[in-house]
Amino acid sequence: MLPHSFRNALLLAAAMLLASSSVIHAEEGMWTFDNPPLKELAAKYNFHPTQAWLDHLRLSSVRLNDGGSGSFVSPDGLLLTNHHVARGQLQKNSTAERDYLSTGFYAATPAEEMKSPDLEVNVLVGMQDVTARVQGAAKGIADEARALKDRDAEIAAIEKESKDKTGLRSDVVSLYHGGEYWLYQYKAYTDVRLVFAPEQQAAFFGGDPDNFTYPRYDLDMALFRVYENGKPLHTDNYLKWSAKGAQPGELIFISGNPGSTSRADTVAQLMVERDVVEPAIIEYLKRRIAAAQQFAAQGPEQARLVGSTIFSLQNGLKVYVGRSEALADKAIMAKKEADEADFRKKVAANPEWQKECGGAWDTIARVEEQIKPQIKGQFFRRTDSQLFGIALQIVQYVAEVKRPDGDRLPGYHDAQLESLRFRLLSPAKIYPATEKLYMTTALDLAQEKLGKDDAYVQAIVQGDGVDQAVNSLVDGTKLADAAARNALLEGGETAVAASTDPMIEAARRVDPIVREMNRHLRDTISSVLTPAEEKLGKASFLVYGKDVYPDATFTPRLSYGTVKGYPYNGTIAPPFTTFYGLYDRAASFSNKPPFDLTPKEAAGLGKLDLSTPLDFVSTGDIIGGNSGSPVVNREGELVGLIFDGNIESLAGDFVYDGEKNRAVAVHSAGMIEGLRKLYDAGALADELKGKK
Amino acid sequence: MLPHSFRNALLLAAAMLLASSSVIHAEEGMWTFDNPPLKELAAKYNFHPTQAWLDHLRLSSVRLNDGGSGSFVSPDGLLLTNHHVARGQLQKNSTAERDYLSTGFYAATPAEEMKSPDLEVNVLVGMQDVTARVQGAAKGIADEARALKDRDAEIAAIEKESKDKTGLRSDVVSLYHGGEYWLYQYKAYTDVRLVFAPEQQAAFFGGDPDNFTYPRYDLDMALFRVYENGKPLHTDNYLKWSAKGAQPGELIFISGNPGSTSRADTVAQLMVERDVVEPAIIEYLKRRIAAAQQFAAQGPEQARLVGSTIFSLQNGLKVYVGRSEALADKAIMAKKEADEADFRKKVAANPEWQKECGGAWDTIARVEEQIKPQIKGQFFRRTDSQLFGIALQIVQYVAEVKRPDGDRLPGYHDAQLESLRFRLLSPAKIYPATEKLYMTTALDLAQEKLGKDDAYVQAIVQGDGVDQAVNSLVDGTKLADAAARNALLEGGETAVAASTDPMIEAARRVDPIVREMNRHLRDTISSVLTPAEEKLGKASFLVYGKDVYPDATFTPRLSYGTVKGYPYNGTIAPPFTTFYGLYDRAASFSNKPPFDLTPKEAAGLGKLDLSTPLDFVSTGDIIGGNSGSPVVNREGELVGLIFDGNIESLAGDFVYDGEKNRAVAVHSAGMIEGLRKLYDAGALADELKGKK
Repeated sequence: MLPHSFRNALLLAAAMLLASSSVIHAEEGMWTFDNPPLKELAAKYNFHPTQAWLDHLRLSSVRLNDGGSGSFVSPDGLLLTNHHVARGQLQKNSTAERDYLSTGFYAATPAEEMKSPDLEVNVLVGMQDVTARVQGAAKGIADEARALKDRDAEIAAIEKESKDKTGLRSDVVSLYHGGEYWLYQYKAYTDVRLVFAPEQQAAFFGGDPDNFTYPRYDLDMALFRVYENGKPLHTDNYLKWSAKGAQPGELIFISGNPGSTSRADTVAQLMVERDVVEPAIIEYLKRRIAAAQQFAAQGPEQARLVGSTIFSLQNGLKVYVGRSEALADKAIMAKKEADEADFRKKVAANPEWQKECGGAWDTIARVEEQIKPQIKGQFFRRTDSQLFGIALQIVQYVAEVKRPDGDRLPGYHDAQLESLRFRLLSPAKIYPATEKLYMTTALDLAQEKLGKDDAYVQAIVQGDGVDQAVNSLVDGTKLADAAARNALLEGGETAVAASTDPMIEAARRVDPIVREMNRHLRDTISSVLTPAEEKLGKASFLVYGKDVYPDATFTPRLSYGTVKGYPYNGTIAPPFTTFYGLYDRAASFSNKPPFDLTPKEAAGLGKLDLSTPLDFVSTGDIIGGNSGSPVVNREGELVGLIFDGNIESLAGDFVYDGEKNRAVAVHSAGMIEGLRKLYDAGALADELKGKK
Repeated sequence: MLPHSFRNALLLAAAMLLASSSVIHAEEGMWTFDNPPLKELAAKYNFHPTQAWLDHLRLSSVRLNDGGSGSFVSPDGLLLTNHHVARGQLQKNSTAERDYLSTGFYAATPAEEMKSPDLEVNVLVGMQDVTARVQGAAKGIADEARALKDRDAEIAAIEKESKDKTGLRSDVVSLYHGGEYWLYQYKAYTDVRLVFAPEQQAAFFGGDPDNFTYPRYDLDMALFRVYENGKPLHTDNYLKWSAKGAQPGELIFISGNPGSTSRADTVAQLMVERDVVEPAIIEYLKRRIAAAQQFAAQGPEQARLVGSTIFSLQNGLKVYVGRSEALADKAIMAKKEADEADFRKKVAANPEWQKECGGAWDTIARVEEQIKPQIKGQFFRRTDSQLFGIALQIVQYVAEVKRPDGDRLPGYHDAQLESLRFRLLSPAKIYPATEKLYMTTALDLAQEKLGKDDAYVQAIVQGDGVDQAVNSLVDGTKLADAAARNALLEGGETAVAASTDPMIEAARRVDPIVREMNRHLRDTISSVLTPAEEKLGKASFLVYGKDVYPDATFTPRLSYGTVKGYPYNGTIAPPFTTFYGLYDRAASFSNKPPFDLTPKEAAGLGKLDLSTPLDFVSTGDIIGGNSGSPVVNREGELVGLIFDGNIESLAGDFVYDGEKNRAVAVHSAGMIEGLRKLYDAGALADELKGKK
C-alpha cells in the first residue's frame, strides 16, 4: 500500500534531509508535467504525446488530502481512487452498528451517496515557474537566517497574490531541492461523496503479509463523486475506460502524486537516515503497533476503532523495514557512492561550476553531523493525539493570523488557511478511547527516550504520571466538538488565552517549546541547508540539463513504463493475475484471515469469469502517494489503478531498479467484473464504460 | 525437480570430496532406517513409531535406477513415482509418431500396460552393519594404497557372499564417510510396466522457470506396475491412500533415496567446490544446453529427441547455480566455519580423540590442494555419448570379469554384474543424431579446455577434426543394436579384441587412459582421503554419538517434518496450492509456454473441484534422488508425493534451513482428482483408494 500521508506526518527529521541529482535509467522517473520525458518516449516507444494529451491527463487527475491520488472517470464527477485512500473517510462515517469497512458501501442512487467529512480533492489547473522571483528575494543578503526568512516571505506573497487573484489553492513548490520553484494552482473540491467501496477484506485481501508484494489479488478501489454547488461536477476532463484494459507489453502512463523520495540525497544524508532516522522510526512503529493490537484484542468495537491505525502503522513498518534493508544493502550504497563521485567529478571539471556549487556536499555533510544528535529529540517529542494536534493548531492559528503573512510559521500563510480550517472543523467523530491509547503510547515512549524531565513531556504531564495526565486531558477537553473548535477560532487570541479547556492549556504550554524547536531548525539548520540544496539543484541542471526529474514532493507527476512481469522467487512473476488466483490463495490458506474470502466473493464463484485479469504490474516509477493513480494507455484511456509496489520497490525511495521494481495496479477489467458480478453495481460499471 | 542420476553421473571430481559432521537442527536430517530420529519425534510430536511401522514404510518404498524414489500403493504392485522419474522410460517408448511425453499415457486394462525397456526397481529388504569387517580388513597395513585395495576387496567379498547366498542385489554402503559400512540387500524388479502418466506439460507446468520453486501447480506423477514372473506383484507392503491427504500443520514422513549431500564437507572441500568444481560444471551445462537448444530448433522431431536432455541439463544448471550462490553466501560459509571450528575444538579437548582423529582436517585440506589442479582434466575428459559409454563398459567388462572379484574396477564386481548387464542390454533405441550432437559438444569443449593434444581426446579423434571423427564413429558402430552388444559380451575378451567396430576400437584406445586416471585417483588421492574420512566419521560419533545422520548416498532414508508454509517474497507461501492456482498462472501468462494448459486441463474446467489441493510443502529434509518419495502421515498412509524443493532448498546440499527450506510434493487429493476428472482413470483412482 502506498498512502503518502504517513511519511510526511511523521518526519520532522527527514524533512531536513536533502538532495543532489543523477543519471536516469530507462522507465525511471516521476516527471513534472512541464517537463515530460519526450525524448525517451520518442526513442523507445515512438510515442509523441501532444500538449492536449498531457493537459487532459493532468486535468483528469486529482490529489486527495488524505494522502493519495485519483482521477475523474465520468463526465459526472465520478472519481476513482483506492479503497485504502478512501479508508479514512469510510472509517469516519462508520459506527459500531454500521461498519462500512466490514460491509463495503454502494449508493445505487444519487441520494444515497455519502458525504465525506473532511476530504479535499485538488486538481492542478495552473503552473508557473517562479524560480527567479524566489531566489531573487534573498539575493545579496549575507546573513543566512535573514536570507531564508526573506525567501519564505516571498513564497508566501506569491501564494497570497495567486489565491487572491484566482481563488485557487496556490502552493509554491520547491523542485530539484530548490533548483526550481513553481507556483502550482489547484482547483479544490470539498463536497466529495462516496459512491462505492468494496469490503476492506476484498480490497486488502492478504492483509499485512501480502502488502507491498505481488502476485496480488486485491480489488483496492473506491469511487467518489465530486459535487460542486450541490450538484455532481460536470467535467470534460475525465478518463475514458479502456475496453481491453492493460495488455502485457504495452506502454502505460501513471499520473499521480508521489509523496517523497530521497534519490538525490547525498551519501552523508543517507548514512544519517540509515543510522539514526530509520531505527528510531522502526522502534516507534513497533511500539505503536503492539499497543494498538493489545487494545484491539479487547473486543470487536475496539478492533474497529484502531483498525485503520494498525493498517497504517503496519504499512509504515513494512516500508521502513524495506528502506532500512535497502540502505544496509552494500550494492545500493556502492551505487550511491559511485553516482555521487561521478557527479562531483563532473562539477569539479568546470572551475566555474566548482566555485559556485562544489562546496555543497561538504556543507551538507557538516550539517548532517550537526543534525544527527538532535534527531531523537525532535522525533520522539510527539503526542499522536488528534485532539492535542487540533489544540496546538488553534493556539498557533489565532496568533499567526495576526502577523504579517511573510512572518508566519509554515502552514499558517493566508493561502493555506482555507484548507487548514476545513480540516480543523471536520465533523468526524473523535474517540476518547483511542485518543488516550495513542497519547499514552507516545508520551511513554518520549519519556523513555528523552527522560522524565524533558521540557516537552513535562509541559503536557506537569509532574503527573502519563496515564493520569492523559486521562485528565482527554476527559476534560471539549475539542472533540467541532463547534467548540470553531468558537475558539472565531474568538481569536482572547478566547484562546482565556480558555480553561485542559487540552488548550497544554497546547499553550507546549507552543513556545515547538516554536523554539522550529526557530532553531530554521536559523541553524535550514538556513544553511536550503542554499546548499539549491546549489546542488543548480549543479544538477548544469551537468545533466533537464534530462532529470526532481525528487517526489506530493505534487502531480507523470511516470511511464511497460506492463511486464519480472524475475521473482527463482522464477517469473506474471504481468497480471486473475480471479482464479484469489480463490487459490484463499483456499490454500484454508480461508483463514487475512486470506479469507468475503461472503460476496464466496457467493461470486458461479458468476465471475475467473480468468478476468484482477491486478497487474508495470515498470512505472512510483512511491507512496501514488496510491489511486490512474494508469492510462497511449490513447489516454484508463487501463488500471495503482495501489501498491512490489517488495523489491521498497528500495525505490533511494534507487529505481527497472529489472525488479514494479508498480502494482488493479486491472480495469477486474474492476468492471467485480462491480457487475460481486456487487450488483452494473449501473456504475455502465457509467464507467460510458454506457450511461 | 530432484532426479538424482544427474549429479552422480557427472561428478568424478565431486566424488572425491568428503566429510565431517555437525549438530542437528529441528526437522533436519535424512536418517537411516536403523537409526530413526526417535528422540526428536517423541519430544516434539509425542510420536513413537514401532519397528513394524518403520519396516512397513521401508518395504513399501523403492529406489529406481533411473535416479529417483517411489512406493508401492496397491497390493497388486502399483508403483507411484514422479513423471520426471518416469520420463526417461516414456521417452524410450516414444517415437516420432507416438510421443507419450506430449500425450501422456493410460493403460485402462492390464494388457495395455507398457513395458519399460531398462527400468530396475529396488526394495531394501535387509541391512547389516559390516563396519568391523571392512575396517578390519586393512588393519595394521601401513601402505595406504595397499590398505585401500584390501578394504575394497573385502567389500567385494561381502557383496558376493550375500548375492550368492540370497540372490539379492547386495551393496556395501559407506555411511558417515566411512564411519560405518553397511551391507544393504535389495530385492530387484526389472519387469516394470507403465500404467499412467499425464502429459509432460501437466507434470511440469511452468517448465524451467518454475522448476525448483513454490507455489507450484504440477501433477508430477506416474504409475507403474511391477510384475514378477509375468504377473502383477502381490505385496502386503504398500502404502494405503489417505482419505484426507496432507493437512496443514501435521507431522509427515518422507521415505526415499536422497542422492548426495555435502553437509559434512570440510571448509577446505567446500572452497574447492566453490572455486573449481561448480564453475566448471556450470560452464559445461550452459554449453550443452545451448547446443541442444540449437538442435531442437531444427524441427519438432529434433525437439522431441533432445527434450529430456534439455530438461535434465536445465534442471542441473538451476541446481548448480543455486549451490554456487549458497557457497558464495557469506553467512552460509561463516556458519560452516563456525561449525567446523566447534567440532575441531571438541575433538581437541580430548587428547585421545585428538591423537586419533585431530589431524584429519589438515590431511584433507592438503589432499584438496593436490586435487585442485587435476579437477579440470578429470571433468572435461568426457564424450557424453551413450554408445561410447557402452563400448567402454563392454571393453572393461570382458577384462574385469576374468580377474579376481576383489581386484576389479569399481562397478564390475560380481554382485553388480546383473544390474550392469540389464542396462547394457537395454532394447531402448539410441538415436545417431543426438549421439553425434552430444559427443561433438563434449569433445569440442574438452579440446578447448585441455588442448588439442590431450591424450584422451586424441585417443578418440586420432588427428581428425571432432566432427569427422564423431561421424565416423557413430555412423560406423553397430552398438545401437542390443544383439551386437550381447555378442561382444558373450564373445568375451577375444571377441572384443578382434572387433573392428569403430566405437569399440576407440574404447580400447581410451581404456588404458581411464584406468590410469582411476589408478592415480586411487593410489594417490583416495588412499589418503578414505582413512581421513573414516577418522572424521569416527570423530563425529565420539563427539555427537548417533544423534547425527550420514550425508546422503542414494540409499533409503527417512525424513520427517511438518506441512507448513514459509516466508517468501515479502509475504508467506501457503502450505498448499489448489487447481485454482494452475488456471490462474496459465491465464496470467496468457496461456503461453511453459505456462500453457494441456487440452485435457482446458477441458477439465467444468469438471474439476478447483479448490482441491494440488501441491504442498513440508519442512522435511530432502535432496535430488528424493524425487518420487512417498509422503506419509502418522498412520503410514500416503498423503503426497515429493517432486521438488523450493528455490531456498538449493543451499540444502550444504546446510538445512528449517525456516525456509521446503520439500514440494503433489497432494494425494490432487492426484485422485486429476485421475478421475482429467484422465478418465477412475478405475486407477479406485485401486489407489482401495476400492477395487
